Formats: sequence, C-alpha cells, structure tokens
Amino acid sequence: MLTLEIEQASTTAPVQRDIRRTGLHPDYWYPVARSREVACGKAHAARFAGAEIVLVRPEQGPVFALEDRCAHRQVPLSRGVVDGERIKCGYHCWTFDRTGACVGVPYYKKGMERPRGVRPYPAREAHGFIWVFPGDPALAEAAPFPQLSSCSDPAYKTRFLDREIGCHYSFMHENLMDMNHQFLHRRLMGGIKTICLDARSGPGWAEVDYTFGRDSGKQPLGEALIIGRHGVKSADQVKDFMTIRTEYPYQSLKFYTDGGSVPALDLWNCYIPLDAEQRRNRTFGLLSVRRPPIPFLLDAFWPVIVWFTNAIFTEDRWIVELEQAAFDRQGADANLEIFPAIRNLRRVLIEEGVALPA
Amino acid sequence: MLTLEIEQASTTAPVQRDIRRTGLHPDYWYPVARSREVACGKAHAARFAGAEIVLVRPEQGPVFALEDRCAHRQVPLSRGVVDGERIKCGYHCWTFDRTGACVGVPYYKKGMERPRGVRPYPAREAHGFIWVFPGDPALAEAAPFPQLSSCSDPAYKTRFLDREIGCHYSFMHENLMDMNHQFLHRRLMGGIKTICLDARSGPGWAEVDYTFGRDSGKQPLGEALIIGRHGVKSADQVKDFMTIRTEYPYQSLKFYTDGGSVPALDLWNCYIPLDAEQRRNRTFGLLSVRRPPIPFLLDAFWPVIVWFTNAIFTEDRWIVELEQAAFDRQGADANLEIFPAIRNLRRVLIEEGVALPA
Amino acid sequence: MLTLEIEQASTTAPVQRDIRRTGLHPDYWYPVARSREVACGKAHAARFAGAEIVLVRPEQGPVFALEDRCAHRQVPLSRGVVDGERIKCGYHCWTFDRTGACVGVPYYKKGMERPRGVRPYPAREAHGFIWVFPGDPALAEAAPFPQLSSCSDPAYKTRFLDREIGCHYSFMHENLMDMNHQFLHRRLMGGIKTICLDARSGPGWAEVDYTFGRDSGKQPLGEALIIGRHGVKSADQVKDFMTIRTEYPYQSLKFYTDGGSVPALDLWNCYIPLDAEQRRNRTFGLLSVRRPPIPFLLDAFWPVIVWFTNAIFTEDRWIVELEQAAFDRQGADANLEIFPAIRNLRRVLIEEGVALPA
Repeated sequence: MLTLEIEQASTTAPVQRDIRRTGLHPDYWYPVARSREVACGKAHAARFAGAEIVLVRPEQGPVFALEDRCAHRQVPLSRGVVDGERIKCGYHCWTFDRTGACVGVPYYKKGMERPRGVRPYPAREAHGFIWVFPGDPALAEAAPFPQLSSCSDPAYKTRFLDREIGCHYSFMHENLMDMNHQFLHRRLMGGIKTICLDARSGPGWAEVDYTFGRDSGKQPLGEALIIGRHGVKSADQVKDFMTIRTEYPYQSLKFYTDGGSVPALDLWNCYIPLDAEQRRNRTFGLLSVRRPPIPFLLDAFWPVIVWFTNAIFTEDRWIVELEQAAFDRQGADANLEIFPAIRNLRRVLIEEGVALPA
Repeated sequence: MLTLEIEQASTTAPVQRDIRRTGLHPDYWYPVARSREVACGKAHAARFAGAEIVLVRPEQGPVFALEDRCAHRQVPLSRGVVDGERIKCGYHCWTFDRTGACVGVPYYKKGMERPRGVRPYPAREAHGFIWVFPGDPALAEAAPFPQLSSCSDPAYKTRFLDREIGCHYSFMHENLMDMNHQFLHRRLMGGIKTICLDARSGPGWAEVDYTFGRDSGKQPLGEALIIGRHGVKSADQVKDFMTIRTEYPYQSLKFYTDGGSVPALDLWNCYIPLDAEQRRNRTFGLLSVRRPPIPFLLDAFWPVIVWFTNAIFTEDRWIVELEQAAFDRQGADANLEIFPAIRNLRRVLIEEGVALPA
Repeated sequence: MLTLEIEQASTTAPVQRDIRRTGLHPDYWYPVARSREVACGKAHAARFAGAEIVLVRPEQGPVFALEDRCAHRQVPLSRGVVDGERIKCGYHCWTFDRTGACVGVPYYKKGMERPRGVRPYPAREAHGFIWVFPGDPALAEAAPFPQLSSCSDPAYKTRFLDREIGCHYSFMHENLMDMNHQFLHRRLMGGIKTICLDARSGPGWAEVDYTFGRDSGKQPLGEALIIGRHGVKSADQVKDFMTIRTEYPYQSLKFYTDGGSVPALDLWNCYIPLDAEQRRNRTFGLLSVRRPPIPFLLDAFWPVIVWFTNAIFTEDRWIVELEQAAFDRQGADANLEIFPAIRNLRRVLIEEGVALPA
C-alpha cells in the first residue's frame, strides 16, 4: 500500500491516507447535473458523495438546492411537487422554501412540536451545468469558480461529456494524466509514441507536457478531426504539444498543433463522487474543438468525433472499472507508480482531499 | 433519532430503542400464509422474522407447522415429501411427525447417534389464513386470537390483501393511521381535507378518529363504492367518521357514513416481518365492504373497487419503501413526528415490541 | 455446531474449526481450467480460492501461470496481450515473462523506481486440464500428481464434468460419499436400497463400500448404460459393488458389476473453491464408462448417458446449494451427522484443510 505521510496542522503525528479512501474536498463548486435535466417547475435528484440533493427550478427565479429529504419522514423532496418557489413533500405536504425553512404543514395545530427545516446548499447555474457547494456555505462566495472560456467561444464547438463510472475519482485523474496508456487504445489509435517533456507541480496542482509521434498504424479520422489537421508526422518532426493539468479538484487537457498558441482541443473535466464511499463517479466534461477555417466542416464531421470520443471513453471506462475492482479485492491501494507526473498528481489528490469515514 | 426511554423490569437503567430496530413481539398469533397456498398433501415454506417455517397440510387432519429445516443436513423440509401426517426430507428421507419428532431414518443402524427432531410451532387455520404462534408455545393457547366478524358476515363482501413490501412493519402502521397523507393520493382521490377529531391510547393500543371534507376535485367512483354512497359533502356538512386502531400487533380501520353505527368499510391488517432484520414485510389484510340494498350492485362494481384499492396501495407501497430506504441510508430513525396520534402509535410499537439483535 | 478438536503442533490448546470455514489446503496440484479454454497465443483468467491466476499459452512452449494482476496498476494481465512467451498488460504495456519478472516498461527512464514483477505459479497440463500449485512452490515438484488411468484407457469412454456450483467443496465430497441420498434421485432412479458394507479411513483419506438393490420402480436406461448391464436384481441377489474414496483433496467413485475386478464406471472429481470464502466451487470431473463388447454401442447411447448424468447432477446441485444457503443463514455448521462414513470424511476434510480468515 502506497500512502503519503501528511503533517497535520494541529499535531506532529503524521497521518497515513490511502488515495482511494480519500474523499474529494467539499469546499469547492461542483457540477451535479446538466442544466437541461432540471425542467421548469420541476425538482431533480442529484448526489454528491452520498449526500442526496434536490435541485429545484421554480417557474420564476434561479435554481435552488436543498437536502433531498423531508424533515418529517425523510422521504426525498425530489419526489414532491414544486409550487412557486417552494417544494412540497409528496407524502404529507410539508412545504419548504429556497432557504430550506419549513413554511407549511397543512394539519399543523397549536401545541404541536415546531417543524424543522432542511439544509440548503449554495447553488449556481453556469456552462450548461447546475453547480452546488457541498462544504461550508460560508466559504461558497469566495471560492474560485471555474472560468471556462473555450466552451462559450464561437471559435470552438463543444461537446458535453456525462457518464456514470464505477470507480473512485482519482482513477479518472490518473487515467487522463498518464498518456503512456495509449497501448490501451491501440485498436482505435494505432501505435503512438508518447514523449513526456516535463512534469511540474505545486500546492493544489500538477501538470505534465507531452508530445507524440506515430510508431505504426494510420491516423484515425476521428483523431484527425479532433486535433484539427491531418497527418501526424514521425516522432522527431512533430511540434504537437499537450498539457494536462489537475488544478484541484478540476482537470483540463489542452492540445496545441504545429506550435500554435491557441489550443486545437480544450477539454475540461470534473469527476463527482456519487456514493459515500466514493467508489462511483459521474464524469462531467466539456470537450471544445477549434473550428477549422472551412465553415461547417466540423459540424459535418461531428458524428465521427462523437463516435471516436465515445469509443476511446468506453476503453477508459473499462480499464478504470477494472482498477476499482482490483482495489476492492485487495482492500488497499497496491499501485506501484513510477511515472513522476502521476506521483505528483497522487500527492495533490491526497493532500487536498479529506479522509473518508472508515 | 427519536427514541423512547423504557424502564426495564429488572433494572432502573433506561433502554433506548429505535422504532425501526424494534422487532414484532413473537407471543401473538400471526397469519403467515393464505389457506389456499397450502395444498392438500403438500408442504409450503413460510417465514416470520427470519424464522423459516414449513406448513404441512396432510391429506387428513389439520395443518401443522415445523421449523423448515431437516435436523440432519439443514435443508428445507418444505422441499420434501408429505406422507400421511409426516414429512420426509427430500435429501436422505429423514422423516418427521407433526410434533417435530424424527420418526424414521431409512439407513439407521444400532450404535448410530440418535437423530434429533425439529421445533414445532402451534398452528391454526381461520379467516382464510394459516396462523402460527412464533413465540413461547406455552403461551399460545391463552393468547387472544383475532375475532374478525365482518369478513364472515354475509352483509359484507371481503377482499383479501396480500403483498410483500420492502419496509419495516412500523411504517405500515404509521401510513394507515396518519390520514394526513391524503396528499400522496391527490391524483386518485382529489383534494380531501382531513380533520382529526380525537387521538386516544392506552397500554398496547392507540386509535384516532377522523372526518373528511372535499377541498377540490371530484369524488372518484372507486371511493364512492367503497364507502357506500355518492357525493361527499363540504367539510362542515359531513357526518362521515373513521376510526383507525392499532391493537398490538394488529391494525383496523372502520369507516362509518352518515352517522351510521355499522361500518360501511371494515379493514383488518397484519404486517408480518419476513427477514431477521424485519426490513421487509408481508401485508395480509381483509377489506370488507358493506353490501348496498340493491343485490349484486357491489359485485358488479367489484372490479372498480379492486382497481382503486390496488392503485391506492401502489402509492402507499412506493412511499413506505422510500421511507425504509431513507432509514437504511441514515442508519437510525430521524423522523420528526408532530402528530399526536402517530406519537401514541410509536410509543405502543416500541413498548410492545422486542429489541432486534444489532 | 459440530466441530473437531485438533491438537496444534506448537501448543496444547485445541482449535475448533467449522468444516464450512475450512479452506482447501493449497499444497496440492489443482485443475483450474480445461485445456481447451486456453487458446494458443491467448491468456485465460482462472481462480483458486480468491486468488486470481492468469494462464498463458504461448504460441510455442508450455502453458505458464502468473498472478493475474499487473504489478503497476493491478488490472488483470489476462485482459492483456500475449507476445511470444511474454504477456503485456493492456493498460500501459508493462511486460512480464513466464517467471513473473517485469521485462519491459515502454516509457521507463533512468532514475525511475524499479518495476516489480508478479508471482508465478507452478503449472502443468495433463488429463485435459491445466493444473496449478497454489501453495508453497518449493513443494510443487515433490507433491503427488493424480494418476488417472481410465480416462486415457481406450477401453473406456470419458466425459468431462465442469460446473460452477454455489457451495463449499465439503458439501460436494459429502454428497457423493453418502449414497443414502438416493431418495433425492427417486424420480430419476426409482427406489434403490443402499446397503453400506464398510467404512474405512486413515490419515488423509476416507472410503466407503456399498451395494444396492431395487426396492421399487424400474431401472432407468441411463443408469443401465452407465453401469454396463441391464436388470439390477433384488437386494439380496446383487453382487454390484461401489467404492467411494476421498483421498485428500480428490475424490473418486468406482463401480464394479457382477463381481468384476475392473470398474464399469470410474469417476474422478476435484472441487475447486473459487472465492476467498470458498462458498462457491468449480467441479471438474472425469467420468469414464467401460465400453461394452459391442463396438460403438456406448457411443450410440452416449447422449442418453449425458442426459442422465446431467439430470442427476442438477438434483445434486439443487440440494448442495440449499445446504450452503442453510449454512449462510445459520452462520455455523449445524449438521447432525450419524453416518460413520461421513463422520470419517468430515474428520479428513477438517484435519487436512486450513483455517479460513474470519
């Protein structure tokens, strides 16, 4: 078991923490649903690390988020009825406003115990997602909110990624950052030679630069379309350049071709733990591809890009779920990591995360 | 977590007990199967709170009940063969009589260890059910046996209810007794105004009286048929009267219309825990509807009543299973009960029940 | 709970061990796959008591067996690529040879931590199976390897048995050895009277002799074909003779007809635990039937034999899985065994086995 000794602020005793038993830190803004999942006048059940959250979009006014349980009999409010800016539990019609206060019990009489409310979550809507702040609400306002420029830039066409995957979020970060796993995609991408140029890290972040060459096989059409031009050259000729960065808790990949300074491909990902043990995640992503000079060319070939990214993702899902299964069998992280970029990443994920209850 | 402090007889230390971790007291008569499930000359597997019970109906003589395991290799006797008033295990043909004694092992030879028998359960057949007494057999004879009159009264037509539901029996008692949950049935019953008239309780029982008015919506046909007449009046005109009573461990609902003194509707329910944790139950019920003066009218409309009661029950099942799921997630009862009738009921269920093994 | 007191070598304190919590001793040769399951140039995932094992059949050279996990990220090597006498992990292409040594990491650079290898298992191929030695490799060479003569003798026709069954291996041994369970097969075999002639045992082995008579019913065709002649006589006339022997950890059944000295039926079985708790097994068997004098007669009737043995086996599977379910419910072995042959067998299985982790 590889663990990391971390000095605790309040004591000198070091703690040991297994990366797969490290929870995502709650004091960040996290997407928990696509905007379009929450219809007008409706409620929607979302999750973050075992916390059940109801997202409510009133007919008027912004989306709000509450604990997804009635204070009375604990059934999900998301199965209830939205009425104006309030949500009514579907069982006995206890009614809650956007602050979580209980503002109505139809059969309430003097002398009965005072109904309690439920916990509200700070919520925002941006970039096509509903975001919540699962941690200390006092920190929400000041917490950095992801600035994602490519997905709203008309020079790019953007695809939403949204998949539920049976693994800890850390496997997702490692999978994307370690480009030495091209062997996994050999059937789809042919023989690619990955060259790591540099690995850097600092407090809360780790990043790595790569360039690529083709060993064998032909460049697939999907890949050519995504990276914006045809015919990757042999390893010593290319000027392609990729940077993958985990800036806790988010991850991005930018791919530059022919020495350009604007990315041909700009990917942003966030991996939301679903269950309390954080053994499943929902991966939300924005995959932005720079439009080529010929109008509509990218649109015409979009189905190929969709097929290709889905095919790659299917292989990645297969392997990360095998990793989680191995962890579950072994009961502890037994990875032998030798690649400096991933060792940096692991340190960031462990240091920035929180201990999961045993 | 709402708990109740109970003085233990033998000590002054109070015990705290979670209502959902309270087992049904075994020293009562419980229906565990419909009579028609146990065919002549056949065995039938039943369960009570994790105890496996084989019901045997010989060609001649009354039904008997034994532990459903062979004393030899522990496989269910219910998978064996009924032979006269005996049951033979289907594996090595060990044979048991109605007292549970082992009365035959085909290959038994002198010098072998003496075969043991299995535990018998006191059993009865009445009201269309097979009943057993899962507790101390010495108490069976003197224990009160439910007197159910309407179901054998030709003035009533009776429907058997029989469903397996994924929740603790206490949720069933609470669901029926708390008529403020009409909001759950708003699509089927329209807007009903529930008025609680009185809530009473004593040792081993709790009951509550209601009357009703219609806020909005039209009275559905199924409801009109069940309660025996058309056109519920506005809330301050009605004389309809409902009493729901839990007389441990059974529950009944009687509905009187227009100030009548015989019930138009007479429902008796019993909720049998199936598993040892008592997180599932089988609900047995007898729903008796008083026949109107016109002969066969009730029979003609019976399919509507069946449809309507099934539709109501489907909604109830949905919500009580959501309650159980919430309890399982939270690990303890977190309900905030403000309604006096349900607070009484909870006290009865906790006081009369037994602690479940942790 | 029936347990056995065993003197431990190093102490005088007796240990108590539940037969169903006794693991199969790893210091034996065990079949873990049919030969034909492992194709040329391919890898195959096998299991022994929770240990994942990859079997690799190179294009040239014998099959080899390794721990089925990459030393790097723990995913199964069996999902990788066989290349010569090496296997490459399908994720980052770490490469391992037949000794388990890591002989290649495509992106390895000086200064990186040294890659580790994985554990090899001694492996053999014989009698149509791939065998491994899951215990101490130093003992593999000297360990007895099953000598199975009938299956390679042209005087016999052999059927491979291969089924996954949801029970501890001990239930399989007991099921076959206790022929008093003919009652289970009453629909297939009619009424057979089993007469136990003798039960013997010694260190690591137990055996029992039987003869049979027919009480009632007609001999089925499948049975007649398997035992090589028609018309079993009444109980006091027959000279049929059966010996069932557990020679740890294997089991055999030999059936001799009419006082013959070569078996008409020769069955060899081995029950491989699959999971760490050993609650599931894969039963491998070789069922050899002596050919009758008329050429091809046995071949012509082979489908009947296949059908008959499958039908018998289906009943056995049903009952042993009920036994395991009873054990799981009861949490401990509660069997009341009175038959000396099975008491001997239980002693052998407990003494020769190992304690399972609690």
